[in-house]
Amino acid sequence: HDPLVIAGRAFRSRLFVGTGKYRDTATMVAALERSGTEMVTVAIRAMNLDAPDGGDILAHVDTRRYHLLPNTAGATTADQAVAIAHLAREALGTPWIKLEVIGDPRTLLPDLQATLEATRRLVRDGFVVLPYCTSDLITCLRLEDAGAAAVMPLAAPIGTGQGMLDWAGIRRVIERVSVPVVVDAGLGVPSDAAMAMELGASAVLVNTAIARAQNPPLMAEAFKWGVLAGRQAFLAGRMPPQNEASPSSPTEGVPF
Amino acid sequence: HDPLVIAGRAFRSRLFVGTGKYRDTATMVAALERSGTEMVTVAIRAMNLDAPDGGDILAHVDTRRYHLLPNTAGATTADQAVAIAHLAREALGTPWIKLEVIGDPRTLLPDLQATLEATRRLVRDGFVVLPYCTSDLITCLRLEDAGAAAVMPLAAPIGTGQGMLDWAGIRRVIERVSVPVVVDAGLGVPSDAAMAMELGASAVLVNTAIARAQNPPLMAEAFKWGVLAGRQAFLAGRMPPQNEASPSSPTEGVPF
Amino acid sequence: HDPLVIAGRAFRSRLFVGTGKYRDTATMVAALERSGTEMVTVAIRAMNLDAPDGGDILAHVDTRRYHLLPNTAGATTADQAVAIAHLAREALGTPWIKLEVIGDPRTLLPDLQATLEATRRLVRDGFVVLPYCTSDLITCLRLEDAGAAAVMPLAAPIGTGQGMLDWAGIRRVIERVSVPVVVDAGLGVPSDAAMAMELGASAVLVNTAIARAQNPPLMAEAFKWGVLAGRQAFLAGRMPPQNEASPSSPTEGVPF
Amino acid sequence: HDPLVIAGRAFRSRLFVGTGKYRDTATMVAALERSGTEMVTVAIRAMNLDAPDGGDILAHVDTRRYHLLPNTAGATTADQAVAIAHLAREALGTPWIKLEVIGDPRTLLPDLQATLEATRRLVRDGFVVLPYCTSDLITCLRLEDAGAAAVMPLAAPIGTGQGMLDWAGIRRVIERVSVPVVVDAGLGVPSDAAMAMELGASAVLVNTAIARAQNPPLMAEAFKWGVLAGRQAFLAGRMPPQNEASPSSPTEGVPF
Repeated sequence: HDPLVIAGRAFRSRLFVGTGKYRDTATMVAALERSGTEMVTVAIRAMNLDAPDGGDILAHVDTRRYHLLPNTAGATTADQAVAIAHLAREALGTPWIKLEVIGDPRTLLPDLQATLEATRRLVRDGFVVLPYCTSDLITCLRLEDAGAAAVMPLAAPIGTGQGMLDWAGIRRVIERVSVPVVVDAGLGVPSDAAMAMELGASAVLVNTAIARAQNPPLMAEAFKWGVLAGRQAFLAGRMPPQNEASPSSPTEGVPF
Repeated sequence: HDPLVIAGRAFRSRLFVGTGKYRDTATMVAALERSGTEMVTVAIRAMNLDAPDGGDILAHVDTRRYHLLPNTAGATTADQAVAIAHLAREALGTPWIKLEVIGDPRTLLPDLQATLEATRRLVRDGFVVLPYCTSDLITCLRLEDAGAAAVMPLAAPIGTGQGMLDWAGIRRVIERVSVPVVVDAGLGVPSDAAMAMELGASAVLVNTAIARAQNPPLMAEAFKWGVLAGRQAFLAGRMPPQNEASPSSPTEGVPF
Repeated sequence: HDPLVIAGRAFRSRLFVGTGKYRDTATMVAALERSGTEMVTVAIRAMNLDAPDGGDILAHVDTRRYHLLPNTAGATTADQAVAIAHLAREALGTPWIKLEVIGDPRTLLPDLQATLEATRRLVRDGFVVLPYCTSDLITCLRLEDAGAAAVMPLAAPIGTGQGMLDWAGIRRVIERVSVPVVVDAGLGVPSDAAMAMELGASAVLVNTAIARAQNPPLMAEAFKWGVLAGRQAFLAGRMPPQNEASPSSPTEGVPF
Repeated sequence: HDPLVIAGRAFRSRLFVGTGKYRDTATMVAALERSGTEMVTVAIRAMNLDAPDGGDILAHVDTRRYHLLPNTAGATTADQAVAIAHLAREALGTPWIKLEVIGDPRTLLPDLQATLEATRRLVRDGFVVLPYCTSDLITCLRLEDAGAAAVMPLAAPIGTGQGMLDWAGIRRVIERVSVPVVVDAGLGVPSDAAMAMELGASAVLVNTAIARAQNPPLMAEAFKWGVLAGRQAFLAGRMPPQNEASPSSPTEGVPF
């Protein structure tokens, strides 16, 4: 009744899950199942595409159950990203691509210029492009103009689990961009996911916080509920916070 | 499989819900139901105890379904609170009491000294006492020593919806007190509840954030999932947050 | 032109400095000097009161230059604190006392009940009492009622340098208490001190953040400027923060 | 002894001050003086360049005392910004330019792509370019590669006074970029400026927070001390924050 629609396709779950960093495949499979996700990202470069079954991950991810979202992890130029996207489309038969063009090996932060260029080229080539980006508002607006099917600003650097430190920047993007905003990277706990959804995000993507939890399947389910909680709260309309101590003071978003 | 146990009684739900501030009784009843709660607080002074059915609220709260937790809202001295507790026990037949002794009418913040005194007296009188308090650690330890069945530190002043501003103080209480810690007052959205549970709280109490949402029943359900998300995440063991940029820097809980 | 007045005595500096934890006495003396402080706390139990010069610290702190504020560090009961205060008055000839009654050896958090009791007794005995406390509002109001010359809520536990995590609680105390509020303990950097002063604190006390800096005298001067910056900003009247993105949204003190 | 050096020129003050939004010119002049600044930004489009004295602002800013930093406010394309920069150089005789290319009229957030392009062109034309940007790390590194003399990431949108909400992003830029980082826009109070400097920023630019204070000259002085406090604290080396409650827990930059 409240589907997420991206590029005309509807999803009931608003939790995207990644397939990296699990201690073993069985744990990953269990985590995917417990998460309730319908959208699973896979790194093309992590696959053995020449193998009959598409490599380890594909052998274990039930593609009738999950919508595969290949990503271009590892690309550091627009050319590389475009090449990987084409490879993914041929190998997996899907025009969907999570576009990642990394600008710095240490932080894995995106190169916005190259991401924008690759988005334009891939849209022209018929792809459904979901670019990973920062919360830079103008770039997000340009990605939308370029035909991105969604934008995926990071909450914090990949794998850090620092959470919604940049909630103000994420909120700005949500308020101004028309395509779905999927908060990607840096979430550490379900309350982070709930907060993103309460701010109006359309979905979140979680990988490390599940894979590196002590009990990944249980954490996967925890994120499932966190996303649902945040989404329902957004729809239910939160009470306005009150400032008991200075009711008429002009505090907005800052401590005093 | 993961019950909350207070004074020997087990609860599956870790969300306590209040009965004040709803626009009408039907909305309250629907919200209680959607929340999945098993513990409902009622203000004794809001009831018409002389009426055959115990007054408006009791007429509508199914006491076979919900464990009633009467509170002493309105008390400003230990004497008043003790008197209200006895009145509640007679009228409702329960020794459970949420003890509130308010020290200031403007902020409704608790009077810790009077709360401690009333706790001692009520425990002696055979009550199951759940005192509302601040995150002052020593007072929480003293309440435990006095026989409180749980402690209920506030996240933010009653009715403000400001959330877990004092997470550091709440966390200290959780780490040191042995009885269940129920975070009470000030939560605004499910991510607040999830955060409290992720820090290790045993339960949370929510009233205004549900009652004053645009859609209270939906918000009640949102809190249900937020509490479950936070509890499961606590049990699943979160990943340690990483500081990508200065891995060896000594930042703990502060920005730099 | 903007003196801090406590118990009728005026101070130009609003930075109180402690004398513990320095690597050596020369560093401490240099730090005191660079800080511009006029109020220096000393732990009575750290002094050799039988020595002709009052022990190490007093031998090096110029009491013509600095107003000595002995403290009762080490006391865990009201009785002990009262006894130390009397000892301090006899030895140092000052009725001023920073009252500390510790309720827990691990966090050094105050025992509010014992602090309140000791305040009453010491005020009766003619002391100028500055009690160390938490941001619990009702206790701060009671301390004021008991005759405290100031209240000294902690920003964070002693020695942690975590800063103004509890800014909301501190702000509430400032807004309601009439005697000077001196933010004590937990400040880590000058921006913390500036923030406390911007919120309307009358002064701050800093010890560990200076003593354990790599360059304590320079850090002492940094805090001097931080306190002055915050005080002047409070007097100058800050601009109201603006929410560019949702001008009519009800965000007050929370992210959304 | 601790000069800020940009493009070979040394400044003692690390506080840049803007000239917009003051209620009258006398207030602006007084604020500049009290701030101790040596670098004053002026919007070229706000000047009457045809007037003999260069228009209102230039008539009142003593250019022997202050280094003028003209900005390209109002430009929405690289072409416009480049044209304004050339106009500024001719009119004011300075190759220094604060480059602003706005991507959105509502938030005044920068267009990073156009900013990067204009930086490259202006550096080629011999300008000393200080670009206004977001905390997007890769763009800041590219601006440095393009020959920017400094980078000027915003703390929060222009004129909002929301402060260092994005401290994590700003810190990343400081840790990775070699040219001076001047935190620009969004600072509301001196503690914000102190925090930026404690994180290692080389300087800050403040305009609205001074101009719209109730007492702009006093607030200007407050920022002077805040910047000095933060700089000295950075040089003095802060104590590592301690987590009293869970000394061995892996909390870094997040609440738990």
